[in-house]
Amino acid sequence: MVNIEQCLAALTQVLGENDKDVPLHEPKFNGNEWQYVKDCLDSGWVSSVGEYVTLFEQKIADYTGMPYAIAVMNGTAALHVCLLLADVAREDEVLIPSLTFVATANAVTYCGAHPHFIECHESHLGIDLDKLRTYLTQIAIVKDKQCINKLTGRRIKAIIPVHIFGHPIEMSLLQTLAQEFHLKIIEDASESLGSFYRGVHTGHASDIACLSFNGNKVVTTGGGGAILIKDEALAKKAKHMTTTAKRPHRYEFYHDEIGYNYRLPNINAALGCAQLERLPQMIENKRHLAKRYQDVFSDIQGASILQEPQYAKSNYWLNALILDKPDRSFIEHFIDSAVERKYHLRGLWTPMDRLPMYQSSPKMDLTMTHQLFDRVISLPSSPHLGGVYA
Amino acid sequence: MVNIEQCLAALTQVLGENDKDVPLHEPKFNGNEWQYVKDCLDSGWVSSVGEYVTLFEQKIADYTGMPYAIAVMNGTAALHVCLLLADVAREDEVLIPSLTFVATANAVTYCGAHPHFIECHESHLGIDLDKLRTYLTQIAIVKDKQCINKLTGRRIKAIIPVHIFGHPIEMSLLQTLAQEFHLKIIEDASESLGSFYRGVHTGHASDIACLSFNGNKVVTTGGGGAILIKDEALAKKAKHMTTTAKRPHRYEFYHDEIGYNYRLPNINAALGCAQLERLPQMIENKRHLAKRYQDVFSDIQGASILQEPQYAKSNYWLNALILDKPDRSFIEHFIDSAVERKYHLRGLWTPMDRLPMYQSSPKMDLTMTHQLFDRVISLPSSPHLGGVYA
Ligand SMILES: Cc1ncc(COP(=O)(O)O)c(C=O)c1O
Ligand SMILES: Cc1ncc(COP(=O)(O)O)c(C=O)c1O
Repeated sequence: MVNIEQCLAALTQVLGENDKDVPLHEPKFNGNEWQYVKDCLDSGWVSSVGEYVTLFEQKIADYTGMPYAIAVMNGTAALHVCLLLADVAREDEVLIPSLTFVATANAVTYCGAHPHFIECHESHLGIDLDKLRTYLTQIAIVKDKQCINKLTGRRIKAIIPVHIFGHPIEMSLLQTLAQEFHLKIIEDASESLGSFYRGVHTGHASDIACLSFNGNKVVTTGGGGAILIKDEALAKKAKHMTTTAKRPHRYEFYHDEIGYNYRLPNINAALGCAQLERLPQMIENKRHLAKRYQDVFSDIQGASILQEPQYAKSNYWLNALILDKPDRSFIEHFIDSAVERKYHLRGLWTPMDRLPMYQSSPKMDLTMTHQLFDRVISLPSSPHLGGVYA
Repeated sequence: MVNIEQCLAALTQVLGENDKDVPLHEPKFNGNEWQYVKDCLDSGWVSSVGEYVTLFEQKIADYTGMPYAIAVMNGTAALHVCLLLADVAREDEVLIPSLTFVATANAVTYCGAHPHFIECHESHLGIDLDKLRTYLTQIAIVKDKQCINKLTGRRIKAIIPVHIFGHPIEMSLLQTLAQEFHLKIIEDASESLGSFYRGVHTGHASDIACLSFNGNKVVTTGGGGAILIKDEALAKKAKHMTTTAKRPHRYEFYHDEIGYNYRLPNINAALGCAQLERLPQMIENKRHLAKRYQDVFSDIQGASILQEPQYAKSNYWLNALILDKPDRSFIEHFIDSAVERKYHLRGLWTPMDRLPMYQSSPKMDLTMTHQLFDRVISLPSSPHLGGVYA
């Protein structure tokens, strides 16, 4: 049994005694946020027209090194469009981890396609690629360059790796597997802005990836997201689709395909521009905070702090305490005790295959996912908790 | 032939000589916008948690008199959810005007349903209810309380009236017709915030309606929208569906149906709260501006300014000049000449049935819609152009 008092003491060592709540992750707006937002209000350009959107997209592209970034109103919308760009069609299947935020599964459903749940690995919480290979070899065949699920008869069109809590999975192995089985890769990098895989920002292992700037993410725009794209024509298509597919014209309204109103308002982009200026510093702080958690929890028996894989540099979006053995009651007890000290912890998301609307979706053996659900607790991880700046 | 020089002179009489552009519709943030937005930044609550969202919803409900308002991220999302709440299902048909913004049609498509285009009336640009009755009598039969399109065999589930440019259609007649044919009504009040039908705000003739707070609307939140609902249980459902269908819980993540991330960020709601405070004044200004357009154009042969129906009080979202006879080349010429004086005019939206993705959708005779496309020009209509306040 993990000693709960020791765990609380360790938390206190890092987070100090507080009279105010310490949320799981919260933003601070101590840079140019107000100046840029005020500029929007003064100019009247708060909406879709305005230069902060363009600037924000440029800054995201520069930071991630992906050639094109399209700002949209959240990560869910970004994922939806990524799937459409990857030609995921009605009745296709898309492989996604059962261990993820529900948006990954819902975006597949929005396309009329079926999520097909796959297992994760305890070392990084992302897809277990060895088990996936064995599974696909058993249930899938490749016919005419298409991957067919022998059990359902449906095409498996794509796979969405999620870099859980910011920890990149081993993308080169995934790429090999995806090539073999003719799967398109869409990287869900919602949690991994500022995370690098072998020196390159997450998102590069695929042609299309998505980011989220939700209020609990490293960079927030209130609500926001981005589509990262390599190909210029595809980037143009993404911009077109997310702005109601209106043909550019000074006064005419002509839309040439089914489009979406997914554009990010200028005022939200302004917030993002200011936040991105401070991103390198925030990542440094977050990595420092992770180190502190690792240090103080290193003496505790039966649990440890999740560390970045050797091949990666993680943003440590959320620090995770992992118990050696499943213990639901410890998790609940720990969360409840911590909140008395104002520390807000959280368990993992309920695995997707346990949610009512996805209970009958296709899936592989998910023993590890279900175990981890009873082993992992997320710890407060805001950048300013690192103690590097106030 | 309408005299273009006279039209330009009339415009100048209302809008004055300008060295800056006079857009079709633009916001001014000269109320409490700064204060509320700054409050969001200072508190760190820019995202989905935060009290401006609740306050904004309350203020919308108060103003419109609808019992519940759910803030969402735009009018398109609001419409999508309205259709889901009305149980519009895959392969259903939904009657919508061909003369509308593309979002009305797209929202139907998002549900896997088919837009079915109907004709408009020149006196208010909304649905022509007499022609619709004749048409439905011909092509539809009611079986087991369901309206079936005899030509396609599909169920016609609902009808979406749009109060074009803010002018309410004759809702009591529509209600009678809808009852007779067992159609659910969803009011697209995107353009009619501040418009009243027989003393009651638009949206009340149906159980569910939507608003838009896009940058070109009377009230803007950057991007935003709202669902107006009468029934409490339905309102709870709407809130649940638009916030990822997460069951309320302090730290667990459990979602009990397919949900959407459609919530409006707090920072955008803050903007909306400030704008709503000034709404009555803005409507007054807009009505004053409409009066001025009506006056100066009254002498011009062959064209007139669209006026509100007798049974309604319109917000005059966009003032419309209507030519007696179709004249595409006049429209284009007038728009081009006006822009030289910095006045930005606009034609009507391309009728939906002429867009490539909707060309084979079911439709009734749309002669008037196609005529109006070549007869209507929208004039600059921002509230501050009324000359009542600066
Ligand atoms: C893995 C993952 N995918 C998708 C999303 C969706 O992003 P958003 O909340 O911006 O819609 C999130 C974050 O919420 C996420 O963590
Ligand atoms: C009639 C109508 N319906 C729907 C919408 C969609 O609203 P939004 O642009 O906020 O998505 C608009 C406005 O743009 C509209 O004018």
